[in-house]
Parts: sequence; structure tokens; C-alpha cells
Amino acid sequence: MAEEQELKDHREEQELQIVLLLGLGPPPLFKFFPELLQKFKFLSPFEYPTTPIHQFLKFHAQSIEVMICMGGGRKESIPVNWEVLNSLPSLKCILNTGVGVNHIDLTECKQRGIIVCNAGNSYSEDAADFAVGLLLDVLRRISASNRYVRSGLWPLKGEYPLGHKVVPSLLIPFYVGGQRVGIVGLGSIGSEVAKRLDAFGCSIAYNSRRKKESILFPYYSNVCDLAANCDILILCCALTDETYHIINKDVLSALGKDGVIINVGRGALVDEKALVRFLVRGEIGGAGLDVFENEPTVPKELLELDNVVLSPHKAVHTLGSMSALYELTIANLEAFFSNKPLLSPVNYEQEAITL
Amino acid sequence: MAEEQELKDHREEQELQIVLLLGLGPPPLFKFFPELLQKFKFLSPFEYPTTPIHQFLKFHAQSIEVMICMGGGRKESIPVNWEVLNSLPSLKCILNTGVGVNHIDLTECKQRGIIVCNAGNSYSEDAADFAVGLLLDVLRRISASNRYVRSGLWPLKGEYPLGHKVVPSLLIPFYVGGQRVGIVGLGSIGSEVAKRLDAFGCSIAYNSRRKKESILFPYYSNVCDLAANCDILILCCALTDETYHIINKDVLSALGKDGVIINVGRGALVDEKALVRFLVRGEIGGAGLDVFENEPTVPKELLELDNVVLSPHKAVHTLGSMSALYELTIANLEAFFSNKPLLSPVNYEQEAITL
Repeated sequence: MAEEQELKDHREEQELQIVLLLGLGPPPLFKFFPELLQKFKFLSPFEYPTTPIHQFLKFHAQSIEVMICMGGGRKESIPVNWEVLNSLPSLKCILNTGVGVNHIDLTECKQRGIIVCNAGNSYSEDAADFAVGLLLDVLRRISASNRYVRSGLWPLKGEYPLGHKVVPSLLIPFYVGGQRVGIVGLGSIGSEVAKRLDAFGCSIAYNSRRKKESILFPYYSNVCDLAANCDILILCCALTDETYHIINKDVLSALGKDGVIINVGRGALVDEKALVRFLVRGEIGGAGLDVFENEPTVPKELLELDNVVLSPHKAVHTLGSMSALYELTIANLEAFFSNKPLLSPVNYEQEAITL
Repeated sequence: MAEEQELKDHREEQELQIVLLLGLGPPPLFKFFPELLQKFKFLSPFEYPTTPIHQFLKFHAQSIEVMICMGGGRKESIPVNWEVLNSLPSLKCILNTGVGVNHIDLTECKQRGIIVCNAGNSYSEDAADFAVGLLLDVLRRISASNRYVRSGLWPLKGEYPLGHKVVPSLLIPFYVGGQRVGIVGLGSIGSEVAKRLDAFGCSIAYNSRRKKESILFPYYSNVCDLAANCDILILCCALTDETYHIINKDVLSALGKDGVIINVGRGALVDEKALVRFLVRGEIGGAGLDVFENEPTVPKELLELDNVVLSPHKAVHTLGSMSALYELTIANLEAFFSNKPLLSPVNYEQEAITL
């Protein structure tokens, strides 16, 4: 049979160390860094479209000790659940190309002694840059201004938003310096955000599972308390059972009508329905969202709002991040195959992204 | 005659110190801070629409020692030229509500011993925030992403810009940290920009008329040399005869095809036709523009480009800036009427905005 022959041919070629590739089609990493393909033998179910994935995994089960996993956080990605893990009894290591590992069953991995690595700090600066970019955009209405100019309204209606006819509540009330910023999840992304916003004159506070003794910013153990004492919340934490819908209606109420939510973590950190309700009713001041609960679906109510900036889960799409991820992936694979410590293991109780 | 009676009535009411208000209709400053009206007597030609402006000025000529001037930089604003200055022989002081004073004949003011004040540092932080916001938007395509999501393309076409079909040149190549930023005009706005971008990991260099001995950033006496050694140019200088079209085709060529121009100064700092040509041909990487040569007209070629972010001259439209300007205006007026030194005089050879 064609598919069996296909698989056999492949097995016979194996001189290089085998790495399973699980995700959504060929990842950009290999497009940009084809030299990876010379160093390791990658197996991917996507190269064998006629073979069902469970059969593919079963066929290669014994030979696979390490797997690269990508596309996490996307609805259509393959979750690394009990079933997948069970079909790979030799698996010792998962290298996730993303930062968030909520698509991987960490409890099961822990029980099986499988080390899970994520993208480490590869994306931290890009994610932080993007978070700050979203914040500046929401506070200073950059996308909305851009839309205003492109629509040809400037010569017709005068200054954005309403020229000299502005009343105080319509004039953009926000001033970046002096804003009280609450960072939810002070991992490496959150720390990079803090460093940047400090230079703008913002005051910083944070929430995380535990107070970090080396950090001088005020700590709030409760997100609601953080929200009550901040103008802006920036979500940089991992999605876990504990952080699912960590931003709910109570937090949004505490944040108040001038409050702004920035999310570069995962969509499900936010109760999206509640957020939409608060935004539509003007009960919070704005939002900058790179991630959504049901990507690529974006609540249609948001599409009309000038105080909302939407982005298609792209905070870390730069060649800089790609290149850093490439270096990390090579280093992790080489460490794995030479029995050295891996470079970016996650703890099984993910607290903040890239702790 | 109605207009004469109108003017006479007005003159008789004068118990408070008189301040002439010259600009485009009632400025927002007085809308937001009506208490200003209780402290001084403001005369504005816009309150006497039946009186031609030169007649209005002539009528009040002897009584006017100080004038507040707003709307500078806008095409339809009244230039403070020889004619206006000549009709106000008692004028000793001009308080400009903007930072740029290119609509005021500074040479003539100098000869007449008229002190010219601008908005000082009132806007510096807002302008710097906006410049950085524009830069992040251009580098990380935030407005373009927002447009992509709002147009409903995400579920249809996948990740912005082209999902996994991206080729390196289409993947956003920019990484904020490590970008070499050249600041043209290192006044207080430029310095605030430098402070912020330093926190992102950018390296900073600058051009100004003279090297500033207290500044450690590399200095280039020539904008072309600065451009050749930078990835990004941020324009924060005043518009003067010397800085008119300081960004011309030679500078754009030196900046190169991945280069980015950010302008929060004045439109005419840039040879806009050359900029449009370079952008349309892909000979520079992008632009973030808050100001244009013929506001509110924006070159239509720019409206189609994803690597360009456009804003309707609003970098400093915040209540924070308004409030700072109000404080400064009161302080300058009080200083003027009590013969104390003014707080924000410009030098007659404007070098960088808010030196």
C-alpha cells in the first residue's frame, strides 16, 4: 500500500537523529532556517497526508524521543493530550515553539517524566514591544487616527476626533506618563513591559502567584485589588486552570470606566463576553487585544469601536524572534541528544509566561 | 456704526489686563479652563466677525502689549508677519500655544524686541509618546493588523500578513530592540523620545545644529550622515529656513530601503513628494506621519500603504498637555504683567523644538 511504502521509505533514510514535528503544516522556522533540516531528521504527519495521524504516531512510536510542537493556542492545532502522549511511549522531551503551553497536558507530562520546553525568552522583547505598542495605540488612538485620515475625514470634519468642537470627555483624556500599570504575570515578558513603561513615567504594580522578593514594584496577590489600584492591566501570564478567565466582570468593574486591558497572553485569560459587554457599554476605557478566545474569530461588536485595537495573534512575528527561536531549538536539540540539561524547561505549574 | 460701537463697548469694560488672542476661533484652552477668562481680559477678532482683522488690530493697537497666538502650523492660521506686527506697536510679548513658531516672523520680533514664548515643555512627553507609538506601529504593523482583523480577513486568509505562506521578505523584518535610531533635533521632545527608546534597547544618535556637550549619544552634524548610520529617523526639530525639506531624496537614499521616517515636527521638514515616491517604490521601509506639508491634505498615494501610519496632527492632543499649557500660560501672563522673566522664551534662531 502506498502509505506503508511511504512510511518505510522514510524509516530507511534515517541516519540523523529523529525529531517529531507536530503542528499545523510546515512551520516557518524550517522555511527560514532550512539548515535545521540538515542537522536532524524531522518526521511530520503533514508530509503524509494520506496517513491518519494516530496511525502515523503509532508507526513511529518507538523511535520518537523528542518532539517539536507548534501552533499552540490556535483552535485547530493538535492538543498534546493523554492520547497523543500515550501513543509515544519513548517520548522524553517536548520542545514547544511557542511560549504558552496550555495545549500540552503538563500533568500527564510530569507523570511520564517528559520535560517540556517552551520558547524561553525568544519572544519576550517582541511581545513586550507589541504590548507597549498596543497600549500606546489605545491610549493615543493611533489606529483610529490612521483610519480617520485614510477615510478622508480630516479635511471634511477637522481635527480628530471633533476638532475645536471637542468637549473634555471627547478629547483623548489619556496621558501615558503617570498611568498606573498593573502587570498580570511578571515573567520575562512582563518584566520587559515594565522596563519600557517605566521610561514613559508610568508607575508599575504586578500580580503573580507569589510575590517576587527581588522585585520592588508593589505586589497584589489578587487581580481584583490590582485592577482597583491601576488604570491599565497588561496580561502577560500563561493560560492555566488558575488563570482561565482571570479577567472577569469583577476585575473589569474594579478597573473602572477609564481602564484599559492589554492582552498579549492568551485569549481565554479574559472572559471575552464580559469584556465585550463592558466595552460596548463604555464601562471600561479601551482594549488592545492580540489574542482571543476563539481565534481567528473576533467578537463582531469590537470591530466598530475606536477605543479597541485588534491584532491577529502576531505579537511575536518578527525575524528577530524567529532567529532567537532557531538558536534555542538547535541548542535544546543538541542538549537533548547529548544528555545535557535543556535550556528552556517550563515548570509544570506554569505561573507566568517564561518565568 | 455697529462695529465701532461694538469695539467701544468692549474698550470701556476693560478692568482686567488685556491680552490679544490671535488664532483660529476660540481655542480649546479657554473651553477647558474658563477660569482664564476671569483673570485676564481677552480680545479676539473672532468675537467681532463683522470687523476686518486689520481694522480690529488697528483699533486696539495701543492697548495691546501681549498676545496669545494659536493655530500655528495650520494652513489657514493667521501668520504673525510684518503687517500684523506693524499694526501692534505696543506689542512686547507673544505667547504661542504651540511648540513650533514657524508662523511667526522671529527676525522681525527680534528687531522689535518682542519676546516670543512657545508651549515650552508642555507637550514634550505627549509628543514623544506619540512618536514612539507611531514608530512601534510602523515597525510592528499595528494599525495594519487592526485593519486586517476589522476587515474580516483573519479567518479567511490566516495569519497576517500571509500566514504560513510568508517568505522572509514579507514577514515583518523589524525588531525594535537594536534598531539604530537617529533623532533630528534633540530638544526636550527628542530627549524624551531617546529616553523611551533606550528602554527598548535601541541605540540612539542625533543631529542638531550644534553638538550638545552634555549628551553622550553620537552626534552627526549632517542629517545625511545620520541617515546612513541609522535605521530610523525621528523628526523632532523646529521648522526654520534651515530645516525646510531637511529630509530630501539624498537623506532618504542614505536611510535605505528598510529605513523608517517618523515625523511629529512639521510637515515641511520633509520633501513630501520625494517621501511619497520613495514609499511607493519601496525604496524606504515605512513612515509614521503626524504632520504633512499641506494639512489637512494627505498625499493619496499614502492611503494605500500598509507600512505607513497617518495621524491628523494630533500628537499633543491630550488633557495632560492642555493642563500643562494652561499652567504655563497663566505663569507667563503673570510674569509679563509683573515684569518678571518669562518662562518659555524661544531663541530667535530656533534650533530644536523646545530647546
